[in-house]
Amino acid sequence: MGLGDALKQPDRFVWIGLHEPTEELLREVQRAFGLHDLAIEDAHRAHQRPKLERYDDGLFVVLRTAQMNRDQRRIEFGETHLFVGRRYVVSVRHGASLSYAEVRARCEAMPQLLCMGPGFVLYALMDFVVDHYFPIVDALEDELEALEDEIFGEQFSRGTTRRIHELKRDLLEIKRAVSPLVDVCNRLMRFDLELIPEDTRPYFRDVYDHVIRINEIVDNLRELLTSALEANLSLISVSQNDAMKKLTGWAAIFAVPTMIAGIYGMNFRWMPELEHPLGYPAIMGLMLGACGFLYLQFKRSGWL
Amino acid sequence: MGLGDALKQPDRFVWIGLHEPTEELLREVQRAFGLHDLAIEDAHRAHQRPKLERYDDGLFVVLRTAQMNRDQRRIEFGETHLFVGRRYVVSVRHGASLSYAEVRARCEAMPQLLCMGPGFVLYALMDFVVDHYFPIVDALEDELEALEDEIFGEQFSRGTTRRIHELKRDLLEIKRAVSPLVDVCNRLMRFDLELIPEDTRPYFRDVYDHVIRINEIVDNLRELLTSALEANLSLISVSQNDAMKKLTGWAAIFAVPTMIAGIYGMNFRWMPELEHPLGYPAIMGLMLGACGFLYLQFKRSGWL
Amino acid sequence: MGLGDALKQPDRFVWIGLHEPTEELLREVQRAFGLHDLAIEDAHRAHQRPKLERYDDGLFVVLRTAQMNRDQRRIEFGETHLFVGRRYVVSVRHGASLSYAEVRARCEAMPQLLCMGPGFVLYALMDFVVDHYFPIVDALEDELEALEDEIFGEQFSRGTTRRIHELKRDLLEIKRAVSPLVDVCNRLMRFDLELIPEDTRPYFRDVYDHVIRINEIVDNLRELLTSALEANLSLISVSQNDAMKKLTGWAAIFAVPTMIAGIYGMNFRWMPELEHPLGYPAIMGLMLGACGFLYLQFKRSGWL
Amino acid sequence: MGLGDALKQPDRFVWIGLHEPTEELLREVQRAFGLHDLAIEDAHRAHQRPKLERYDDGLFVVLRTAQMNRDQRRIEFGETHLFVGRRYVVSVRHGASLSYAEVRARCEAMPQLLCMGPGFVLYALMDFVVDHYFPIVDALEDELEALEDEIFGEQFSRGTTRRIHELKRDLLEIKRAVSPLVDVCNRLMRFDLELIPEDTRPYFRDVYDHVIRINEIVDNLRELLTSALEANLSLISVSQNDAMKKLTGWAAIFAVPTMIAGIYGMNFRWMPELEHPLGYPAIMGLMLGACGFLYLQFKRSGWL
Amino acid sequence: MGLGDALKQPDRFVWIGLHEPTEELLREVQRAFGLHDLAIEDAHRAHQRPKLERYDDGLFVVLRTAQMNRDQRRIEFGETHLFVGRRYVVSVRHGASLSYAEVRARCEAMPQLLCMGPGFVLYALMDFVVDHYFPIVDALEDELEALEDEIFGEQFSRGTTRRIHELKRDLLEIKRAVSPLVDVCNRLMRFDLELIPEDTRPYFRDVYDHVIRINEIVDNLRELLTSALEANLSLISVSQNDAMKKLTGWAAIFAVPTMIAGIYGMNFRWMPELEHPLGYPAIMGLMLGACGFLYLQFKRSGWL
Repeated sequence: MGLGDALKQPDRFVWIGLHEPTEELLREVQRAFGLHDLAIEDAHRAHQRPKLERYDDGLFVVLRTAQMNRDQRRIEFGETHLFVGRRYVVSVRHGASLSYAEVRARCEAMPQLLCMGPGFVLYALMDFVVDHYFPIVDALEDELEALEDEIFGEQFSRGTTRRIHELKRDLLEIKRAVSPLVDVCNRLMRFDLELIPEDTRPYFRDVYDHVIRINEIVDNLRELLTSALEANLSLISVSQNDAMKKLTGWAAIFAVPTMIAGIYGMNFRWMPELEHPLGYPAIMGLMLGACGFLYLQFKRSGWL
Repeated sequence: MGLGDALKQPDRFVWIGLHEPTEELLREVQRAFGLHDLAIEDAHRAHQRPKLERYDDGLFVVLRTAQMNRDQRRIEFGETHLFVGRRYVVSVRHGASLSYAEVRARCEAMPQLLCMGPGFVLYALMDFVVDHYFPIVDALEDELEALEDEIFGEQFSRGTTRRIHELKRDLLEIKRAVSPLVDVCNRLMRFDLELIPEDTRPYFRDVYDHVIRINEIVDNLRELLTSALEANLSLISVSQNDAMKKLTGWAAIFAVPTMIAGIYGMNFRWMPELEHPLGYPAIMGLMLGACGFLYLQFKRSGWL
Repeated sequence: MGLGDALKQPDRFVWIGLHEPTEELLREVQRAFGLHDLAIEDAHRAHQRPKLERYDDGLFVVLRTAQMNRDQRRIEFGETHLFVGRRYVVSVRHGASLSYAEVRARCEAMPQLLCMGPGFVLYALMDFVVDHYFPIVDALEDELEALEDEIFGEQFSRGTTRRIHELKRDLLEIKRAVSPLVDVCNRLMRFDLELIPEDTRPYFRDVYDHVIRINEIVDNLRELLTSALEANLSLISVSQNDAMKKLTGWAAIFAVPTMIAGIYGMNFRWMPELEHPLGYPAIMGLMLGACGFLYLQFKRSGWL
Repeated sequence: MGLGDALKQPDRFVWIGLHEPTEELLREVQRAFGLHDLAIEDAHRAHQRPKLERYDDGLFVVLRTAQMNRDQRRIEFGETHLFVGRRYVVSVRHGASLSYAEVRARCEAMPQLLCMGPGFVLYALMDFVVDHYFPIVDALEDELEALEDEIFGEQFSRGTTRRIHELKRDLLEIKRAVSPLVDVCNRLMRFDLELIPEDTRPYFRDVYDHVIRINEIVDNLRELLTSALEANLSLISVSQNDAMKKLTGWAAIFAVPTMIAGIYGMNFRWMPELEHPLGYPAIMGLMLGACGFLYLQFKRSGWL
Repeated sequence: MGLGDALKQPDRFVWIGLHEPTEELLREVQRAFGLHDLAIEDAHRAHQRPKLERYDDGLFVVLRTAQMNRDQRRIEFGETHLFVGRRYVVSVRHGASLSYAEVRARCEAMPQLLCMGPGFVLYALMDFVVDHYFPIVDALEDELEALEDEIFGEQFSRGTTRRIHELKRDLLEIKRAVSPLVDVCNRLMRFDLELIPEDTRPYFRDVYDHVIRINEIVDNLRELLTSALEANLSLISVSQNDAMKKLTGWAAIFAVPTMIAGIYGMNFRWMPELEHPLGYPAIMGLMLGACGFLYLQFKRSGWL
């Protein structure tokens, strides 16, 4: 049975998955399903922000997908564009993204849900994409904890600062990828869209909930990161303060015997202390005493 | 009288409390009261954010509970999931949370209120959960005051910075647990929900009020904490500045006699001062005078 | 004429003022005017945030009152709870607050306004409470100016930092006491409340205006305080920078003659300069010249 | 023709301008035009925030006027209160403000516009007041540029910090004076006010536009000022860092020959180098070499 | 066929492009198309913020255009004013802006779209203007990356701070130029404007999307810039801390032998060590040992 026939059957729909298609292939798909020019241009160019657009009788949904590249500890982003109509779902993947074969398998295992139509497939795909953000934010939470340990263990170094900056950058990226979905889910839940039957709405509320939670975790991480950065700066200041006090203390302790020694190194003809047999031990004692006194003073006031 | 019979009586309702139930038990409860799949999944997985969801003829409410662990000075969070229908209230507790036996006892002591139905029980449980946040924010207020005393008593140390960071983290947690309740209460107060009779609305307004107050106290604490952190940094800077000035002052005072002594330690054949019998006392006087002069100067300008 | 009779007369109303009443007295008042349980509980417990609540046929208004304690330079807060019905106004005062006898006298002097009913009394009381915030924010403005003089006069000290922190705390308190009144006034001005006749509305608009102004002044003060704090930190840094440059400069100036003196203090047998009769004055001249040269250099570049 | 007669003529209106009137005069005006008590009180007390209020059949508008006092480089603020009715416009000026004679002359030169009635006069006055803010924000822009030149030319001084603080204060003042006008213009443009005929609306849209632009410029200036302040702090830190490195570098360079000289200043009987005829030049060479080596090292690593 | 004739033909429209026209020419255009006085004044004065205004039967749109001046690495801004009516499009260019000849050529190549009327031309012009912001924000992203490399490569200098400030200024400018277009596009997409036929709406949604993306990129850049600035400050502090510790360490290492040498440079008659033939090597050994010990200590604790 060809595509055309399938589309004519009232209780069936077609689900096509494309990965970085050529423009030619996209145009073919456009002709088959009667998709809008602007949506196809978007799907080809990629670099769209997540959004939901309604064209006559179809929906065009853009999602950003994310995957943790464990080797390089980097997050890789991709895009998925979905065309959803009464009789079709077309997914177009760009960049880093898992195949949706798993989603298809899961859907086919639940025929009673799948028969809700393309709306349910849209839910399944969005749920899949959104759920893949959880391990990523978990990894970033671990990263923040490691940073906190470094900061409060005072093993801070230039690298700490760089990692804080990179963590911030990652959080901004995720925020940009996820936060527009709040609005997308809201519209799918509330607006009167023929394509989304009443009983799939609670499912989109579930996606909405996950999106809100990822958003909250990201906001939380950003606030904690800011706080950690401030703690870092504060501890560097305290450490500098301590170094300064230590410097002052030891400088004073060394300066005293140096000065005394300098005095008795003067070549005046008439310096009675120099002639006295007990002069040397007395002066050495004075030096030791002065140093000891200063040391105790500084120790007591916490400078050393 | 079995559960089935109880549910059939028009003027009665069932109130069941579960603590970290098995999935099997939850499924049984689901069958008995006809609860929605997604809500049951949420109740089993926990780690939900506080929310109110409406399913056909029932409400699903998620609350975050909190308890102060006095020994370790840590706040422990738990979750309570409530299913409220016309004839039933089911509470599912996860993690740190007090038993609701106390709420039940209190409700049973007020039969005239209890006969308002499950809506009143929902109020009683929410009120109980929210009121347990007050001792916690009080404890955090005490903690902040202790921190302020440390900071302004200038006993600040690395530990102060760490405690500021941890206090911030706690406040963020509480904020996340309480602030979604503003919206939940608002919807319970305003929307036309059959389950909440008109005369229980003022009670939810009371809960709403408490939630707003906890929120305000938390916001207040966060602003004061930020201000305290800035004061801390500012005082460290002042302290560093003082150390710097002291260092400069004492370095100058010691440098002068050391330099003079160095000069009269030179081995030039022709240095008339060295031959003079008053050379030594004169030079010593000069040294003392210079040091004294510098000391007074620095004292006057506040450097020492 | 008893209270009961007074309440029955269509064109009269009762105005009762209580100060920290016992629970018993409150219950009596409740019975007399038919007030709601929750409102009475609030009125007894105090520690409410400012709010306006509507119960059946009456209003319950909570206001925070403030007074400057000139001796200790502290602001003391109190609460006033107002019950307003068609035939009664009950005010309950807690904590620091002036007696409302003055308001009563003023109202009685304007019978043409008083005959607008309890709504006008509500206005008169709110106006009285709000107007008492103006001298307080004026005092805080003076405090800020004194702080600015300290900071820019560079007499900053640890005390300055503490006062900035305390001023912030006071501003937060006032903000919390006044800002909820924006909403309260708005509702009194706009909503269709039978108790507030059309021609008293402009009076509530007047209160609204004052509340907005206090809010604006407080926000302004907070921004200026933040700016002053930054200026403070910036000036401390500049001061530290100057101390650092001075330290470096003087250290260099003293180090040169000390080094030269050290060289000519060496005990080498063959050091021709030492034998020369002009060696000493030449070296002294060199030292002075080097010091003078360095001094001028540092002076020119602004380090000294 | 008296005032009373003028007010009776259907196609005429009276335009009165007062400057800091006595209370008596205000009361007379009130009687003549039937103005509301509260508005007259406001007009007499001044210190109002900009607002638009509607009384029965008239409008009461408060504007804040501003003038640059070129001599003292200070901005002086005044207030203008406008009463606008069907047959009258009354302007009351307080504090620093230009006379509105110029506005009157301009209006009289455009009789076709003036015949739109008091609404057009209101526009002309508001336009005049708002347009006088442009030279002021221009002056503040120049001030900011001068500050930036100072900061990046690193001629920063204590005065820079003070001027930044004062510029912030000025911007806050202007913001407070102008931003309430956004709302005022909006209401004049949109609400169905009989006094503002349909064809004067585009004129108020023009004023609205200017207000928005002044607001934007002020916000912009505040952000740039914040950025400049941060740049200032950052440059002070860099400068301090440089001073610190220079100090360390020079201290090390001087310390080496001083230490070597000290060693050969020791009085040990058996120090063979001292006896050697080349000892002195060799040691001097060593000193010079060490200093030169250190100097080059520090130069290469950017410390000197 | 003259302009008048063209305007009379129902299915035609006139498209006129002006570049910095004289007032005279503008007045002529005004007469020909019946444009509003205020719009013409705006178009002549320039320095408007982007906006959309509706006059009777026409639209007046102000856009800010931007071009990167590659030689001086500066962004140059211009303005384009568009008058759109049923039968005409008039574009007035001021300052830096490309000619719209390219847009005209593109439009003429798509006659099926052009026949949608002036609304489509408005889209084509807005799209052209907005798309020219993309290369500019790309250039700023490159600039930020270069800055980050400088900061984390620790080649930071005074210039880095200046460039951060200038980048912030550029971002503010672009934000001001682009963000009002969100509202403009929204109104063109949603409001019932006769001039914008239903089927051109998706095109304006496309422009809207681009505007949102530019806004997002700019916001992102600003956050990253702030983070980079903080990293910069943090690294300067760390670097200062290191310099401080190095200074303290080396000062201590040099101070010890200088002090010991000073002691044995004293001229006491009775100093037995001086007489001993092994005194000198023993003391030299002591000096070396002390220095070595200190060096290792400091090395181990990370100070050197």
